[in-house]
Amino acid sequence: MRTALVIGTGLIGTSIALALTGRGVAVHLVDHDAQQARTAAALGAGTDGPPAGPVDLAIVAVPPAHVATTLADVLGRGAARGCLDVASVKGGPRRQLEALGTAPEALARYIGTHPMSGREKSGPLAATADLFEGRPWVLTPTRDTDTEVLNLALEVVALCRAVPVVMDADAHDRAVALVSHMPHLLSGLVAARLEHADESAVRLSGQGIRDVTRIAASDPRMWIDILSANPGPVADLLTEVAEDLDGTVRALRSLQSADEEKRREGATGIEALLRRGNAGQTRVPGKHGTAPAVYESVVVLIGDEPGQLARIFADAGAAGVNVEDVRIEHATGRQEGLVELVVLPTAAPALTAALRERGWSIRP
Amino acid sequence: MRTALVIGTGLIGTSIALALTGRGVAVHLVDHDAQQARTAAALGAGTDGPPAGPVDLAIVAVPPAHVATTLADVLGRGAARGCLDVASVKGGPRRQLEALGTAPEALARYIGTHPMSGREKSGPLAATADLFEGRPWVLTPTRDTDTEVLNLALEVVALCRAVPVVMDADAHDRAVALVSHMPHLLSGLVAARLEHADESAVRLSGQGIRDVTRIAASDPRMWIDILSANPGPVADLLTEVAEDLDGTVRALRSLQSADEEKRREGATGIEALLRRGNAGQTRVPGKHGTAPAVYESVVVLIGDEPGQLARIFADAGAAGVNVEDVRIEHATGRQEGLVELVVLPTAAPALTAALRERGWSIRP
Repeated sequence: MRTALVIGTGLIGTSIALALTGRGVAVHLVDHDAQQARTAAALGAGTDGPPAGPVDLAIVAVPPAHVATTLADVLGRGAARGCLDVASVKGGPRRQLEALGTAPEALARYIGTHPMSGREKSGPLAATADLFEGRPWVLTPTRDTDTEVLNLALEVVALCRAVPVVMDADAHDRAVALVSHMPHLLSGLVAARLEHADESAVRLSGQGIRDVTRIAASDPRMWIDILSANPGPVADLLTEVAEDLDGTVRALRSLQSADEEKRREGATGIEALLRRGNAGQTRVPGKHGTAPAVYESVVVLIGDEPGQLARIFADAGAAGVNVEDVRIEHATGRQEGLVELVVLPTAAPALTAALRERGWSIRP
Repeated sequence: MRTALVIGTGLIGTSIALALTGRGVAVHLVDHDAQQARTAAALGAGTDGPPAGPVDLAIVAVPPAHVATTLADVLGRGAARGCLDVASVKGGPRRQLEALGTAPEALARYIGTHPMSGREKSGPLAATADLFEGRPWVLTPTRDTDTEVLNLALEVVALCRAVPVVMDADAHDRAVALVSHMPHLLSGLVAARLEHADESAVRLSGQGIRDVTRIAASDPRMWIDILSANPGPVADLLTEVAEDLDGTVRALRSLQSADEEKRREGATGIEALLRRGNAGQTRVPGKHGTAPAVYESVVVLIGDEPGQLARIFADAGAAGVNVEDVRIEHATGRQEGLVELVVLPTAAPALTAALRERGWSIRP
């Protein structure tokens, strides 16, 4: 890819433009607000204004309500060999594009995509070339999508150092309802409870509620656009949450009961919910967009002198190994036992060697 | 305070013991699981085993179900001049203590407290002396609490470098229902949706859902204890959330409608919820337990040459100033305008001076 046209120079469009320009692509920037395009150009994202002739790829990064008409315009006037959008919902734009009477040969030059990156801030000034690094970027080709266009999209994803994920458009929309839209609304529902709360209560807030409500700070107008494009799957999920919530309230009311049997019932109900929460939470991929690391254990035999645990930790620390978790087992009636140190697989051999060197017995 | 007895050497008890020992207090450690107390002692938290005579302060850090009986025992045998517990709910323990027939002169030597710190991990191995630094620590004295006992509690809070907050016990319980127990259950409800989700959907997870579900990883048994002690206020809050949730589902269903008027109604409903979420979120104190910083603006005049914004940012960066936000204003029909740089109050004078030195015009 040598030339690209970015239409819409907000956070996402400008970030893509910065990444492409930084890797040698000639990028043209247009926006219905000309000042926005000028700002993006001033930040080094490309050339302000439309190109003289057709480009290799047009990237449509306008608000959801304008995606289909912008795509139809770009495809209709042959402004690019291929064309992609980056809207956060994928079923709607394609159906609208078809409803606008776009010819099949034009549709073949379009691919719907969704880079799974964002910030609470918006606009070109919040853009960075590394916004997409290591993040999933969903591509939704159909059987009719030109292979050349799919490859142009894959090239953009690679130049932005994102991780391409191919999905069906409707499956994508259900997936983002689950991992993004539903959590967003629940975060807002928790935060809304604080609106009129006493200051003495709010000042007791800790990291827990801070994390739960962080995304409730996002721009409501942007989120109305997103949710308007995907209301069905989100409503279905919230209905399921509402059922669980009703069950939780019932369990809490049982916990208030004077009847012990009833209280036990309540505790069982709450425990079931919390355990399902535990199970779901472990499925969330870690910080770097990968599955949670599988850990390894190094098992150390300890005697009954005091201070052995502290020594093991000091020795592990001196070896530069981060211990993720610890389990201790004692044989019945004896002080000696086993200490299981849970570490990243890459750290296990070094830890074993370092502890052996310092005189510890390691279970093979 | 010279001597203390910590009863219950889990995460909280051991962390307090580490802080007190580190600041010169002679701490005795006991636990119904003797190995736990030995582990805490091996980590440097104090002396394993009960003291020979009465101590200055007894700190009861046992699971919620055992708090009242442990307090009654300590107060009954005069094991300490003063006595506090650290359970996360405060109305119940006092009422149970009274129901156990504790004499008024013994009750006067008790103060209910709650350090607002925690980790997902539990047990003495997760303990650290700095667990409470800068965090609120609620004290719930009554009119009958001995001033000496209040002062002993304040001394513990100071030695742990926490921030004391005096509250009524029941107001505390409603406050923690709001800022801790309700968000915890909602985090679990969101995470529970992921339990049986497709892997292709879950891998699209980003920082948003990661933050919302982080606390869903906590130990269910500990949370059943906490919620069992505070079911009423939590159920009341969840009922309010359920009403908002029903309204949200109705609004999303309206957004699915073919009727434009209905869709507009849905968007208005969603916007109202999101704005209430915005308003509530701004009330959550910042990372260091303080209210969000109030920012100051430095307003820079710019001309119409390209690249000026980039230059301003480079100059601010060279001055070592972190720009928190930016707003740009252009006079109608003109390229020149004002750039408002939003920074911490402490940084404003340095930024103004640095930009002036580099030739920028700063609005006074």
